[in-house]
Amino acid sequence: MANITKKVSWSSRADESGATGEGTPLLNGSEQPRHSRQVRLACWGRPKEIPHNEKLLSLKFESLDYDNIENQLFLEEERRMSYMGFRCLEISRWVVCGLIGFLTGLIACFIDIVVEELAGIKYQVVKQNIEKFTEAGGLSISLILWAVFNSAFVMVGAIIVAYFEPIAAGSGIPQIKCYLNGIKIPRVVRLKTLVVKVCGVICSVVGGLAVGKEGPMIHSGAVVAAGVSQGRSTSLKRDFKIFEYFRRDTEKRDFVSAGAAAGVSAAFGAPVGGVLFSLEEGASFWNQMLTWRIFFASMISTFTLNFFLSIYHNKPGDLSSPGLINFGRFESDVRNLVWRITSMRFPCSSYVHRPCLQVMEAMLVAAVTATVSFTMIYFSNDCQPLGPEHNEEYPLQLFCADGEYNSMATAFFNTPERSVRSLFHNQPGSYNPLTLGLFTLTYFFLACWTYGLAVSAGVFIPSLLIGAAWGRLFGILLASITSNATIWADPGKYALIGAAAQLGGIVRMTLSLTVIMVEATGNVTYGLPIMLVLMTAKIVGDYFVEGLYDIHIKLQSVPFLHWEAPATSHWLTAREVMSSPVTCLNRIEKVGTIVDVLSNTSTNHNGFPVVVQVAERDLTSKLCGLILRSQLIVLLKHKVFVELARSRLNQRKLQLKDFRDAYPRFPPIQSIHVSQDERECMMDLTEFMNPTPYTVPQETSLPRVFKLFRALGLRHLVVVDDQNRVIGLVTRKDLARYHLGKHGLEELQLAHT
Amino acid sequence: MANITKKVSWSSRADESGATGEGTPLLNGSEQPRHSRQVRLACWGRPKEIPHNEKLLSLKFESLDYDNIENQLFLEEERRMSYMGFRCLEISRWVVCGLIGFLTGLIACFIDIVVEELAGIKYQVVKQNIEKFTEAGGLSISLILWAVFNSAFVMVGAIIVAYFEPIAAGSGIPQIKCYLNGIKIPRVVRLKTLVVKVCGVICSVVGGLAVGKEGPMIHSGAVVAAGVSQGRSTSLKRDFKIFEYFRRDTEKRDFVSAGAAAGVSAAFGAPVGGVLFSLEEGASFWNQMLTWRIFFASMISTFTLNFFLSIYHNKPGDLSSPGLINFGRFESDVRNLVWRITSMRFPCSSYVHRPCLQVMEAMLVAAVTATVSFTMIYFSNDCQPLGPEHNEEYPLQLFCADGEYNSMATAFFNTPERSVRSLFHNQPGSYNPLTLGLFTLTYFFLACWTYGLAVSAGVFIPSLLIGAAWGRLFGILLASITSNATIWADPGKYALIGAAAQLGGIVRMTLSLTVIMVEATGNVTYGLPIMLVLMTAKIVGDYFVEGLYDIHIKLQSVPFLHWEAPATSHWLTAREVMSSPVTCLNRIEKVGTIVDVLSNTSTNHNGFPVVVQVAERDLTSKLCGLILRSQLIVLLKHKVFVELARSRLNQRKLQLKDFRDAYPRFPPIQSIHVSQDERECMMDLTEFMNPTPYTVPQETSLPRVFKLFRALGLRHLVVVDDQNRVIGLVTRKDLARYHLGKHGLEELQLAHT
Repeated sequence: MANITKKVSWSSRADESGATGEGTPLLNGSEQPRHSRQVRLACWGRPKEIPHNEKLLSLKFESLDYDNIENQLFLEEERRMSYMGFRCLEISRWVVCGLIGFLTGLIACFIDIVVEELAGIKYQVVKQNIEKFTEAGGLSISLILWAVFNSAFVMVGAIIVAYFEPIAAGSGIPQIKCYLNGIKIPRVVRLKTLVVKVCGVICSVVGGLAVGKEGPMIHSGAVVAAGVSQGRSTSLKRDFKIFEYFRRDTEKRDFVSAGAAAGVSAAFGAPVGGVLFSLEEGASFWNQMLTWRIFFASMISTFTLNFFLSIYHNKPGDLSSPGLINFGRFESDVRNLVWRITSMRFPCSSYVHRPCLQVMEAMLVAAVTATVSFTMIYFSNDCQPLGPEHNEEYPLQLFCADGEYNSMATAFFNTPERSVRSLFHNQPGSYNPLTLGLFTLTYFFLACWTYGLAVSAGVFIPSLLIGAAWGRLFGILLASITSNATIWADPGKYALIGAAAQLGGIVRMTLSLTVIMVEATGNVTYGLPIMLVLMTAKIVGDYFVEGLYDIHIKLQSVPFLHWEAPATSHWLTAREVMSSPVTCLNRIEKVGTIVDVLSNTSTNHNGFPVVVQVAERDLTSKLCGLILRSQLIVLLKHKVFVELARSRLNQRKLQLKDFRDAYPRFPPIQSIHVSQDERECMMDLTEFMNPTPYTVPQETSLPRVFKLFRALGLRHLVVVDDQNRVIGLVTRKDLARYHLGKHGLEELQLAHT
Repeated sequence: MANITKKVSWSSRADESGATGEGTPLLNGSEQPRHSRQVRLACWGRPKEIPHNEKLLSLKFESLDYDNIENQLFLEEERRMSYMGFRCLEISRWVVCGLIGFLTGLIACFIDIVVEELAGIKYQVVKQNIEKFTEAGGLSISLILWAVFNSAFVMVGAIIVAYFEPIAAGSGIPQIKCYLNGIKIPRVVRLKTLVVKVCGVICSVVGGLAVGKEGPMIHSGAVVAAGVSQGRSTSLKRDFKIFEYFRRDTEKRDFVSAGAAAGVSAAFGAPVGGVLFSLEEGASFWNQMLTWRIFFASMISTFTLNFFLSIYHNKPGDLSSPGLINFGRFESDVRNLVWRITSMRFPCSSYVHRPCLQVMEAMLVAAVTATVSFTMIYFSNDCQPLGPEHNEEYPLQLFCADGEYNSMATAFFNTPERSVRSLFHNQPGSYNPLTLGLFTLTYFFLACWTYGLAVSAGVFIPSLLIGAAWGRLFGILLASITSNATIWADPGKYALIGAAAQLGGIVRMTLSLTVIMVEATGNVTYGLPIMLVLMTAKIVGDYFVEGLYDIHIKLQSVPFLHWEAPATSHWLTAREVMSSPVTCLNRIEKVGTIVDVLSNTSTNHNGFPVVVQVAERDLTSKLCGLILRSQLIVLLKHKVFVELARSRLNQRKLQLKDFRDAYPRFPPIQSIHVSQDERECMMDLTEFMNPTPYTVPQETSLPRVFKLFRALGLRHLVVVDDQNRVIGLVTRKDLARYHLGKHGLEELQLAHT
């Protein structure tokens, strides 16, 4: 983390200086009631009562070191490596991507089968019970049975999330977005998170909550990638001694992109959509080979899922289930019809913080969902004839005549994936407009309430379901108004467009979502209308409020770097943006100084420019490198001191392997013991520092700095004057602070929360 | 163009120093017969007898100025622009992309309809003639008729290409690849090129050559984009006074990416494939908004084509023709089967240089194609029953029984697009193995011969056709060998895989080609096998020889930058790579000096670091900016001299508009008259130079320089020492020189050819 004590040289905020200076005196108090908002976010770790503020930028998040450190150790290693060595590395990258795809596909398959089996049992039992009591009376017993079933599953899901791994709550997509953007989010790619996530999502979906199992697949894929690529598990304390070369942030982030893509691919059967998702959210520099590997992982993932699901469905070789959700195939034409929707925002404003209360809240929601669904079904009198080709697996007859089924039950008494497919594909006339209207309303409120819960769950499917319902409703109404009923006939098309609009309005992904929808429908003809609808939804939505994931990211004050610097910011230069003064180290530095600098908790810097004095009498010291906290920690741990090296001539030379072994959980400075004698020793950083860090002159404009930072995935950018002296350091937070508000360029404050 | 006189500091090539120094004494002579090869390339402009050499790097190609010049004029303009101004710019970018898509779609539609109509007339006439003479005897008259038809069309096509615009020959894909890579290729995006290309491709396809009309669409889309985005046509001397802001290389290249994508999209009905093509070939820095606009253009393009073709086919609203070629829909399953093919290289080794000879050669090939086809059909006795659902539009009965047709004629007597579709979809047993084998061989040789001709034509369709033919042949043979005939039954699947393998082996595009094939088949299930086949084809092919387009690019010695620096090049530093000494200009420089520097034809630099002397007595001058030749030319033209500005106080201040008006054809220095008095004036470059050019220290490694260069699309990168003094300049050629050969890192020589 760069320098926090910031000299404010920009006049307009001079009066705010000091607010970000020492600790967070302003923020922990209650002086800013207008700006702060108490929000509990289900998905960002163990909930605490933190005053959140959208106008702040948190300092607790670290960046990934994406830039390659080309120090002497690295060059030596490269020189030792033969051409074949590079080949082998390349091949093992492919193998890792194949493994990521395979495992992600397997996990998706596992979730799907378990959900199908458990939900099948649940619906069968409840259905039999309802049928038993429909004529005999006493349907309230069925309701209780249903509610108890739901609550029990949800309880299990909520307990493991709330007590074991709170970060597994929600879909995990905002966290993965941040990770791919280059921000370390603690515990997000651990094995424990994966296990809790998978079990949690099974429980919430089987528990009948208004959630989907697609979003969590993206997170799962990312965890798989982070695990497989490292060749060891820190949680299980197993090191397989493979893929050691990949133990650094650069490689890991690349693999996590592949994992996220494989997750999307498995969730929607959309390998190209997965690649575009990873690129849209993550990659800044387009690397052909990397993209190709990401695509490979996606392909393997969807193929694995397809293969095993085909076997499970006893149709081996059929390969017709490329994703967790398949919209079925739209064959006929669509009229390019564009609607505008005003974006709806899921309020995430739940105020429960203690784990036991969270579990109880989740159970309450599950029970209410069952009750509301039951009531809706009970009072609905929309009976439809039971055709030979109906899509429902559990048609409820209830009070309908023989050979008919309750249409409301299609929507409520079903897994949401099936309901979406029914809304897309059922014959015109399968749904009564009143049924659809009521369903849309109720499900919308259920989904909003559910969203804040501490359970693993995605928002894709509920959005699609709500959109499909009102889309179909709109189609029916339009058909009844227009005279030319044949052209505007198929309400399934409207359901598809509505689903796209709703989902686009909520998540605001555009490019990847279009491709995902096109791949999931399997028809490129719908591409243009879907794209236009998504664009409209995004434009209209952005006018009111940001996308759901961005709101999340903002509420957590994450220093997220967008694609480009805000327009009209060319007049801001590196001099105004940078943090200064900078703590620099000498090329040959006293150990005591280094320990003191690292132990200084008030600054907590992570990167230090290394300088060298040119002439004895000259006080100007020129930049000659950059060294990271993690490197210094390893050097201190191995006591790489000049004096010791002289005394023990046969001491083993430090290698890159030592740094890799310590990755990624470098010990804190407090755990390293340095004796008083050793404090007087000297440390030579020449071999270990990055000798050619990227630099910019202080007159460089913000967009230029931003572009350099984003394109190269930097963590530290040194600002130098025309004598090559260090005068400042630009880090992620310095850039993320500026954003385009309603009144032109705005600046966020930095805070330690 | 950077400094050519290169101080050779790298020991291993010290003995070669001077070879690239002055002019090209070694190259124009015949001292290097072993390395040089005389090749006439059909597609790279007016053919001359140039000694080509794959080990050389030409200096005649310039780079695009992709980096934004943030000088004072730019900042002032930005300050004047309101927030609404930026919005309007953004909206007009979208409008331009929409227009590009629409016009590209229209052009594709025009080509398709004209080809369909003309080919229809041709085949009808020849068919009637054949039918007339089959029983009466005298089929040689039919042959002559057919050959004359073909030669006539091809003659027209060859004449316009050879005499009017030689750069319109071939598919144009290598040129577009280079343009997107950041290299200016003269005349490649002009209106005249477009007209010749469109007419030429119609003539060659109708003329029955073994060519396709898909490749040229990519070039056409790029020309449309370059034209529309500039709001004027230099050829037609019309300036519409719109889109003036886009008159610079950065914006133009972005739009050309969109145009190329729209071209791919129209050619194959693959909008996502188009986006990936543009990204794979061009974009280095992934920009979300740009990608989204590219996708928009692609979508509009395929939709326009689809819409107008539907009307043409009298099925408005059907929208089933998203691309020029549609493979039809594969519905059933495929077994994932991987083959290796050794890549086949189309020899482009034709030695005809005079336009009239080129035309005659093209006519000869057309006549031979007709003759060979006719002979093959004549001697074939592969008769198939004429089913109710045959795909052929012109089934030839010839010597077959009534109700049967000649199977060989399906392949030869048809547009290649239809033949491909027949090979994919016809029932098992429609083709005799012998027919397929003969067809593959003949067509392969015809395609090879055709490839070198001076006609506008693509290589996609011939490749697909050859691949489909041997794929189907392989499928038939496999089915006859294996006992379990039902599983390996459908030879159409093998045809698809074979087509993918052949095409992949020739063009070596991987990511985009997979997506294009998947989109064209409309079934994601084939994704994995297609991808595996393409990967195998690429790996096997790369082992022997580079891809067709890369061979082209290499033969022309274009300084093409690949994705990454060669591995094992970290030990090379900027000091060894850079060109030096550098011609620098002072911030306030004498006009005479500037004119002399610009007039020096032996160096012909395009970018000049601007330096400033810090102290009077100090001779060290520090870097303070960078200025381009084109900027200096405009300054000289407008006589922006310090003395004149003082004398004429009310002189209009130079604005960015003046630079945009001169873009892109800046006058040469020779056309600007500077009197002897004016030579003594001074010019102040402060306002116009880029004040913060990117710099690197001299110890920076080659991969690091490369990454910076590629990610930011640079043209000049200044190398400075630790005093911020200019010591060298890195340009595209300095980086493109290094490549990984058989014996490790190799260096190409620079040449003026």
